Amino acid sequence: MINDRFLRACRREPVDCTPVWFMRQAGRYMAEYRSLRAKHSMLELCKTPELAAQVTLQPIDRFPLDAAIIFADILLPLEPMGLSLEFAEGEGPVIHNPVRNQADVDRLKIIDGGELEYVAEAIRQARLALNGRVPLIGFAGAPFTLASYAIEGGSSRNYLLTKQMMYGEPKTWHQLMDKFARVITGYLRRQIKAGAQAIQLFDSWVGCLSIGDYIEYVMPHVQLIFEGLKREGVPMIHFGTGTSAMLRQMREAGGDVIGIDWRIHLDEAWSTVGHDVAVQGNLDPLALYAPLHEIERRVADILRRAGGRPGHIFNLGHGILPTTPIDHVAATIEMVHTLSQRSGT
Amino acid sequence: MINDRFLRACRREPVDCTPVWFMRQAGRYMAEYRSLRAKHSMLELCKTPELAAQVTLQPIDRFPLDAAIIFADILLPLEPMGLSLEFAEGEGPVIHNPVRNQADVDRLKIIDGGELEYVAEAIRQARLALNGRVPLIGFAGAPFTLASYAIEGGSSRNYLLTKQMMYGEPKTWHQLMDKFARVITGYLRRQIKAGAQAIQLFDSWVGCLSIGDYIEYVMPHVQLIFEGLKREGVPMIHFGTGTSAMLRQMREAGGDVIGIDWRIHLDEAWSTVGHDVAVQGNLDPLALYAPLHEIERRVADILRRAGGRPGHIFNLGHGILPTTPIDHVAATIEMVHTLSQRSGT
Repeated sequence: MINDRFLRACRREPVDCTPVWFMRQAGRYMAEYRSLRAKHSMLELCKTPELAAQVTLQPIDRFPLDAAIIFADILLPLEPMGLSLEFAEGEGPVIHNPVRNQADVDRLKIIDGGELEYVAEAIRQARLALNGRVPLIGFAGAPFTLASYAIEGGSSRNYLLTKQMMYGEPKTWHQLMDKFARVITGYLRRQIKAGAQAIQLFDSWVGCLSIGDYIEYVMPHVQLIFEGLKREGVPMIHFGTGTSAMLRQMREAGGDVIGIDWRIHLDEAWSTVGHDVAVQGNLDPLALYAPLHEIERRVADILRRAGGRPGHIFNLGHGILPTTPIDHVAATIEMVHTLSQRSGT
Repeated sequence: MINDRFLRACRREPVDCTPVWFMRQAGRYMAEYRSLRAKHSMLELCKTPELAAQVTLQPIDRFPLDAAIIFADILLPLEPMGLSLEFAEGEGPVIHNPVRNQADVDRLKIIDGGELEYVAEAIRQARLALNGRVPLIGFAGAPFTLASYAIEGGSSRNYLLTKQMMYGEPKTWHQLMDKFARVITGYLRRQIKAGAQAIQLFDSWVGCLSIGDYIEYVMPHVQLIFEGLKREGVPMIHFGTGTSAMLRQMREAGGDVIGIDWRIHLDEAWSTVGHDVAVQGNLDPLALYAPLHEIERRVADILRRAGGRPGHIFNLGHGILPTTPIDHVAATIEMVHTLSQRSGT
């Protein structure tokens, strides 16, 4: 491995400067990506390993990022489980046969991940193409976040149907979560076997829950995944947004690295989750639209709060947006590396 | 005043049982409200004092709530300031001429509140109709939340344009915030003069900001409002959602009562803001869809965390939803009163 800063930081080992990557770094803010998307649908890109690997490499070829993340979508497992998934232009994902009751949950297939072999193949091809330049991250959606899409039939503002099932049909809810947990564990294991050198579990929407509900309805299922993958020996990142008050519980649920969004100071978050785990974050993705001197002020503040302690991976607090100015992306990566340079190494 | 539990709790005085009211308690979950809305648009209801007063009283006539809140909308001041406001059916508010640059901000009129005399008149009529049964709360949107609607032209998922102005045109941003702060101060003062016995400032969407951005771009303007209204002598409630990490700063910005959403435990939130202010909250509005025994478990947990300490007002963590089962609303109010009964009073 030519650049192992990211993996070292995951293990809380000293690094020459803070590693940085961005969620959705392979995406629409890049002209290279947009020109591929003009020819292929989102699902085509995901399902064609050559294309997925190509997209994965696009930001690595352009920027001195410290990690690549395989190009895929958290909703891909829903399809082989029996849900009809569509990415409607400008509307986000739509599930045409959402999960609303026990019969719907019963019908969901527990897949072993073989149906998502195209992701494993994309990982193999991306690893080859990366040729050790930077490590490759695999990922999956967490049970709550997947359940929210499966139940609501798409994205949601208040998760009404999701919480209705959770509160009203707890047995059905736990069965659904268990199915997702088992599928995700197998799917991530296959990604690791195919060459993913770290994995990230995206529980993007779990921040809509109270802490009590998180502990009761979500945590055991997330624990199952992290426990099940422990012996694979790769660093595991546990990410959510709007989670300022539940970071302790998320950490308890598992992960070697806890993802932090921009709503909380990084030092406060790190104290909360404990310094015996690494942290990843936490620039507001919208800050990338600010003038460069404003971005620099924010990057410096985050690095100051990380305090040079081993175990900080710089990232955004959520995915980069499609209209982000690309020169600001380049400048931000440069700032992270320059401002965090350790003297004497 | 026949029932002054709410005002006593705002002042952190002992009460016989915990007062309760619900944000949006006058709303679509009530058949009485829906039948009026079938005949009148949202803006008609707001602008006709007899109707607004009537809607304000609907939940009070039906439930043993401990406070009424005037029926209005936080966006009403935008219209006389020069913005074209429409409540599009099923879409939420739309502003047809959003604020995007310095010229747009310059054009915004600083109104003195007289243009919103219909709200003051509704307050006078509601006070008469209430006849001392429960106190009446006035309210307004906070500068950030109003600015987000004014800039985005409606509701938003990530506040891209809002943050772009904030970061990119800070002078324009602060002028916009200052205009809103001055208008809101005058508007709330008129509500108090008309008979509002407490006021609530809704900064519903401020939780999308980092703490640094809150302090720099929002806090001074909110402080102006609370400072400006202090001598009016009525309790002031400061409310936001997604604010778990910025509660200390919100408290510093002002308010005698801090609104807490469901994402954080009430006891932790109260320790954070300090026991020298009162707190309001914090049941997930979605919990009202749960079976009654589940609601009771949550109500009991919140009351236990409030610990019988004077200064807790029970409320939801955000507005009640239109499809909430009305019998669950009645049962929840009853639970709060029964489970919090102080022995010997």
